[in-house]
Amino acid sequence: MKRLIIDMDDVMADATGQFINFYEKEFGIRVPRESMNHKNEMERFPGNHETVYDFTFRKDFFRKMEVKEHSQEVMKELNQKYELFIVSSAMEFPNSLPEKLEWLKEHFPFLHWKQFVFCGRKSIVHGDYMIDDLPHNLETFNGEKLLFSAPHNLQFNHFKRLNGWLEVRDYLL
Amino acid sequence: MKRLIIDMDDVMADATGQFINFYEKEFGIRVPRESMNHKNEMERFPGNHETVYDFTFRKDFFRKMEVKEHSQEVMKELNQKYELFIVSSAMEFPNSLPEKLEWLKEHFPFLHWKQFVFCGRKSIVHGDYMIDDLPHNLETFNGEKLLFSAPHNLQFNHFKRLNGWLEVRDYLL
Repeated sequence: MKRLIIDMDDVMADATGQFINFYEKEFGIRVPRESMNHKNEMERFPGNHETVYDFTFRKDFFRKMEVKEHSQEVMKELNQKYELFIVSSAMEFPNSLPEKLEWLKEHFPFLHWKQFVFCGRKSIVHGDYMIDDLPHNLETFNGEKLLFSAPHNLQFNHFKRLNGWLEVRDYLL
Repeated sequence: MKRLIIDMDDVMADATGQFINFYEKEFGIRVPRESMNHKNEMERFPGNHETVYDFTFRKDFFRKMEVKEHSQEVMKELNQKYELFIVSSAMEFPNSLPEKLEWLKEHFPFLHWKQFVFCGRKSIVHGDYMIDDLPHNLETFNGEKLLFSAPHNLQFNHFKRLNGWLEVRDYLL
């Protein structure tokens, strides 16, 4: 069984959407998702980047993220055919640890806690495939690198790109 | 730089001692550490194993563990010579996640959160050396397997054994 490693934020969970929600609550402005295309984390919201970064330390930021469209159904199928691991860079945000675990248990109840990894740097894990939205996570990976499209990674063209979960299904199933 | 992977419970942190403390608080009996030699997790305490297992879900079980003798000084040296990662099977115990992170930050402030991994199964990580007290964690490891002595593993003889942190220093430094 081949090992498939899947990222959480902006792959399984709509982290970008949660930033938009928290920004709107803080500043009263709803930044359109499309306006973020090709922009990095520092550029995508107008104004103070530190406040936007601070959202990730607030209660429920990770716990209440929306599930990405079609991720549940496709992951359920992948879980039959691959040795599946969820690997998330969570260590930077201490309160994300229990929130991410609860989120996984709520939205992906068919996965086992043995399949979860919360780490600082993803260079420590190895496998056959990695799906991630961040090029720096893919760069250190030993297996096949699959870039999951997100507004902040549209400028990168050196990885196989998957536009959403239906393309993941087509490619891996 | 070679990658060295180090376990927490019963390697950096005195998990056995914490079980002894919680058992004494619960049942009024202090079980001598030596009486646990060669016994597995189910046998080492008299009576109900479920209550003993339940200790791991209680507040401060992981947060208040004692640091293993000489671990801080030797880890500080290892951190200069190796690419060091702390890899702990924490996912089974949800409240251990923030407690373990706080514990690491308090007792090993020279380590960075980028070096921490909390997982379910350790088969996902790879490196050059792994120090662990549990044979099943070593069995799936790709690099050199080093068994850190603990009462529950004295019956195993198929790994290189290290009796405490001064032997870790002698072997790796």
